[in-house]
Amino acid sequence: MTRYRLTVEYDGSRFQGWQRQATGASVQAALETAVVRYSGEAPTVYGSGRTDTGVHALGQVVHFDLARPRPPESVRMGLNFHLARAVGSAVVVLDCNEAAPDFHARFSTVERRYLYRILTRPSPPAFGRDHVWWMPQALDADAMAAAARPLVGLHDFTSYRAAGCQANTALRTLTELAVGHAGAHVTVHARAPSFLYKQVRIIVGTLVDVGLGRVDVGAPARALAARSRSAAGPTAPARGLYFEMAVCVGDQSPVPEP
Amino acid sequence: MTRYRLTVEYDGSRFQGWQRQATGASVQAALETAVVRYSGEAPTVYGSGRTDTGVHALGQVVHFDLARPRPPESVRMGLNFHLARAVGSAVVVLDCNEAAPDFHARFSTVERRYLYRILTRPSPPAFGRDHVWWMPQALDADAMAAAARPLVGLHDFTSYRAAGCQANTALRTLTELAVGHAGAHVTVHARAPSFLYKQVRIIVGTLVDVGLGRVDVGAPARALAARSRSAAGPTAPARGLYFEMAVCVGDQSPVPEP
Repeated sequence: MTRYRLTVEYDGSRFQGWQRQATGASVQAALETAVVRYSGEAPTVYGSGRTDTGVHALGQVVHFDLARPRPPESVRMGLNFHLARAVGSAVVVLDCNEAAPDFHARFSTVERRYLYRILTRPSPPAFGRDHVWWMPQALDADAMAAAARPLVGLHDFTSYRAAGCQANTALRTLTELAVGHAGAHVTVHARAPSFLYKQVRIIVGTLVDVGLGRVDVGAPARALAARSRSAAGPTAPARGLYFEMAVCVGDQSPVPEP
Repeated sequence: MTRYRLTVEYDGSRFQGWQRQATGASVQAALETAVVRYSGEAPTVYGSGRTDTGVHALGQVVHFDLARPRPPESVRMGLNFHLARAVGSAVVVLDCNEAAPDFHARFSTVERRYLYRILTRPSPPAFGRDHVWWMPQALDADAMAAAARPLVGLHDFTSYRAAGCQANTALRTLTELAVGHAGAHVTVHARAPSFLYKQVRIIVGTLVDVGLGRVDVGAPARALAARSRSAAGPTAPARGLYFEMAVCVGDQSPVPEP
């Protein structure tokens, strides 16, 4: 058995999320089908983050095993060939390497990074309507950045997880929560070893309420302390969210920018 | 009569170019239909640049007249409403202002700016496949930048215009031709009072031949001197080209970045 580690980019608007479903297209199924067509083998493809319907990835990390080893570059090109035919390259393999037999895309990942993209301008976007959260109102990004700071660190994020979250505990360590802006674009970068269900989208929705002036700068921190989902803001739409990258055990640190 | 000047963004992959056609969707027709639905009037909509099939715009300048005046902000919002219904916001009006009666989107434009986007990486893009020229090979952007320099200025661009060009003369003044790169992205910015038919795309195709090492750095200048289309390189695909902005008579200079 040879284990392969891949970095995968995908357009989430074309899929009902990462995870294989009884019905509906999933990224996992698209990859597994491509592996079958390329290799004749049918391993399970594991991912580092199970993104929701409509959520994208710039650097999802996945792994799978092949009984008959092939050069990693052949795996990358072969999967991309079959993905182009099956889903018009809505999923692409950016790189592929042999991994240690004990590497696991989910369990070897020590940090996950998400990016959220917002476009604030009076007119909607002609490009990438499914790849950004457009809002016609202006956002106060500085207020959002200030409101974000108290959420960084180890906290009980009960207020920031959706119903249906299956985690045993709501304790999570947010390593980074940074709000930036350039022209009409506002971005939120979030880093943590792991996240709760819809945690990033609820955080972004709550920060946007600050940016719009609907609540004051202290509201996100007070919502955190309240430990109740109803204390936080709305869930931001999936279309603005990107799984940016996963840092795994043994990866060089700091990881170079792509 | 009130004249309106608009800045328009569009996804050219959805249209057979700017100009109204007997068959096939055009950006001009989409705008004219939206004007009729909004105002009940049916003026011609004029543009500053007649982009080809598949070519995009970030800042096309257009104008039209209405007999019954309306607030410019109402025009912007009304057209965007009807464009969203008709073409899913593949064309959007970014801003709208009243213009002088003698303003003309085509004839008042003193400078046109185009952007060409190339993605160079081994794997194809999962996002925006119709909005960038993807090539798996690496490009030497520094060589391309050096090769571009001799094309700046007043020249006979016979080698860089396509068959079917209706201009009386091939003399054009290229004010800027700059090649930049950031990560896997290579961009070409071109500025001129006006361009010949497919001039930017032939220039980009010729520079890419330099970047790939197919020809030497001096080849684009020699092709210019040869005054023959066959001396230049291939025409770059439409999908990477954007009409970036038009500078018109009386506009503030330098024009602020968007």
